[in-house]
Amino acid sequence: MEKKITVLPGDGIGPEVVASAVSVLQSVGKRYHHTFHIAYGAIGGSAIDQHNDPLPQETIALCEQSDAILLGAVGGPKWDQNPAELRPEKGLLRIRKHFDLFSNLRPVQAIPSLLKASPLKEDIVKDVDLLIVRELTGGLYFGEPRQRTEKAALDTLVYTRFEIERIVDSAFQLARVRRGKLTSVDKANVLESSRLWRQIVDEKKAGYPDVEVEHSLVDSTAMKLITNPAAYDVVVTENMFGDILSDEASVITGSLGVLPSASIRSDNFGLYEPVHGSAPEIAGLGIANPAATILSVAMMLKYSFGLNEEAAEIERAVAAVFEDGYFTGDLATPGSRVLTTAEWTEKVINE
Amino acid sequence: MEKKITVLPGDGIGPEVVASAVSVLQSVGKRYHHTFHIAYGAIGGSAIDQHNDPLPQETIALCEQSDAILLGAVGGPKWDQNPAELRPEKGLLRIRKHFDLFSNLRPVQAIPSLLKASPLKEDIVKDVDLLIVRELTGGLYFGEPRQRTEKAALDTLVYTRFEIERIVDSAFQLARVRRGKLTSVDKANVLESSRLWRQIVDEKKAGYPDVEVEHSLVDSTAMKLITNPAAYDVVVTENMFGDILSDEASVITGSLGVLPSASIRSDNFGLYEPVHGSAPEIAGLGIANPAATILSVAMMLKYSFGLNEEAAEIERAVAAVFEDGYFTGDLATPGSRVLTTAEWTEKVINE
Ligand SMILES: CC(C)[C@H](C(=O)O)[C@@H](O)C(=O)O
Ligand SMILES: CC(C)[C@H](C(=O)O)[C@@H](O)C(=O)O
Repeated sequence: MEKKITVLPGDGIGPEVVASAVSVLQSVGKRYHHTFHIAYGAIGGSAIDQHNDPLPQETIALCEQSDAILLGAVGGPKWDQNPAELRPEKGLLRIRKHFDLFSNLRPVQAIPSLLKASPLKEDIVKDVDLLIVRELTGGLYFGEPRQRTEKAALDTLVYTRFEIERIVDSAFQLARVRRGKLTSVDKANVLESSRLWRQIVDEKKAGYPDVEVEHSLVDSTAMKLITNPAAYDVVVTENMFGDILSDEASVITGSLGVLPSASIRSDNFGLYEPVHGSAPEIAGLGIANPAATILSVAMMLKYSFGLNEEAAEIERAVAAVFEDGYFTGDLATPGSRVLTTAEWTEKVINE
Repeated sequence: MEKKITVLPGDGIGPEVVASAVSVLQSVGKRYHHTFHIAYGAIGGSAIDQHNDPLPQETIALCEQSDAILLGAVGGPKWDQNPAELRPEKGLLRIRKHFDLFSNLRPVQAIPSLLKASPLKEDIVKDVDLLIVRELTGGLYFGEPRQRTEKAALDTLVYTRFEIERIVDSAFQLARVRRGKLTSVDKANVLESSRLWRQIVDEKKAGYPDVEVEHSLVDSTAMKLITNPAAYDVVVTENMFGDILSDEASVITGSLGVLPSASIRSDNFGLYEPVHGSAPEIAGLGIANPAATILSVAMMLKYSFGLNEEAAEIERAVAAVFEDGYFTGDLATPGSRVLTTAEWTEKVINE
């Protein structure tokens, strides 16, 4: 297989972790006889510095010519006071919308050797294996009108049937190849958009008789993600609820630093990035753990290229290195064996 | 002091827990020489059954003539399929809006004897003592337009300067009589309404030099409430974010069943209710813990009537009964002494 991948390192630890992930990708390519052509582009704060634009036209052109995108992280205090259009995260919002990456997948799985870093009791989180499917290109994030004066401000939460159907369908399809359970999260006791959402989920049910569906209100889901996270398999929800719940879910198992994500569209083109941020305070120290970005590459192989075996191999290698007790400085706890980002990546490649 | 209180028992365990709370209130009245006149009204599912209206005109009239409202809980599977206007929670939304109860206060405090029921590790939650101040009458809950067709649906998130200023002011005032720390939660990197919110918080700062203010994004707050909840003092946010975050916060210390809430307006008129729901599955069994409703009465004494000493006395008594190891069936763990709702209430009154 031959594929073109655009890599957008971004800010902070972004360049370090993507460097690791690219070397893992290339070693997988060598071993399985695939050719991955890598091109680099600018996004976020560094793109603002170089091009006065968090998503320059060159970057868009590069991505349009490739089969998938790997992103590091964007943002940092340097650009925090910038006007909205010149903020690093605007690059992220624009790239999602431009490429219609409507389905954001965030798996959260307990990793035994990281559980001691969890704020939750071990018996609550040890069996967690869930996937949040967040709608990423609609709702409050992009709805019009949006206005602000000194006297009032407004945002619009709008969803079309088409937008809801495609994300709900993709969640059903994911549930049926996992444990067959789908939780649809809304606020149907208050919002009109949630009532349409719930209706569409109910309509779709008949097409997936092998999937068990439940509706759950967003407030009650925010509780149950803490009291009983192991009960969830696939969780599907709209953009803003997904933003909040996926961040909440990301900390329960103690493995925030190692969580990957995928943002894909119907033809399987996708953008892959770690859930963690740009962590400017540790940038350049060689202590950032690249696992989240390496696992994002595994998601790319699986979802964009259909290379399931190669993806599983990467996941296995990452788990093995953690099991062997190797950590990087940012994840280290007393007694663990601490490697640099580069050394840790070597271990994964050797595995 | 002489006060009129309207009691709205509602559905499920509502009638049981308000009965307990009213007897505690009356015993405090006797002891401190206050007269509390109690009138009963219908709300929620039982009001739908009796009057075909979750908030009958009689109930509104009764509340208008009183100094405060005590509510049990509303809802249950019996009414789950009703149309939106005939749902029990619609009574709650309408009463909040009718009486302009814009400030919803939800304290979450670690109770040592309940910590073993927490899903979080004890060292993370043992020092939790936070207060969520949720805006309750604006935002997505009430914004117009709101529409739904078969093809699309929309809700509007709108806030006026006036609405934001009054909730932010009340949060600042609460912070200065607590530990002097205020966290304002928004999504200013995406929403126009959040940008106005953040601007107003910054404008208000100068008026409260004794309060330390931080802005926190809603997604990151959803994480930190789990990883470091003890870091929060007062948290202020808009209606929908407050709904999600206050429910999330309510489970961290293991004391969901005992959390009170207040919904007040500028003249201190208020509605007080437990955070827990109507729990229809245990209604009538005499095992529901009335602590949340009893503590809601304490909030009433404090916020609506300025009776701080009486309120503190109730809080002390409730804590003492838990410390002595007495629980009701719903909170019981192996080895605890289990009392009925009525017996437990007696213990509090004796204290
Ligand atoms: C940076 C921000 C705009 C973004 C979002 O809210 O979607 C981030 O929180 C995320 O979840 O990827
Ligand atoms: C019942 C529902 C409408 C209500 C809300 O969303 O405000 C409830 O969840 C609450 O928090 O009091």
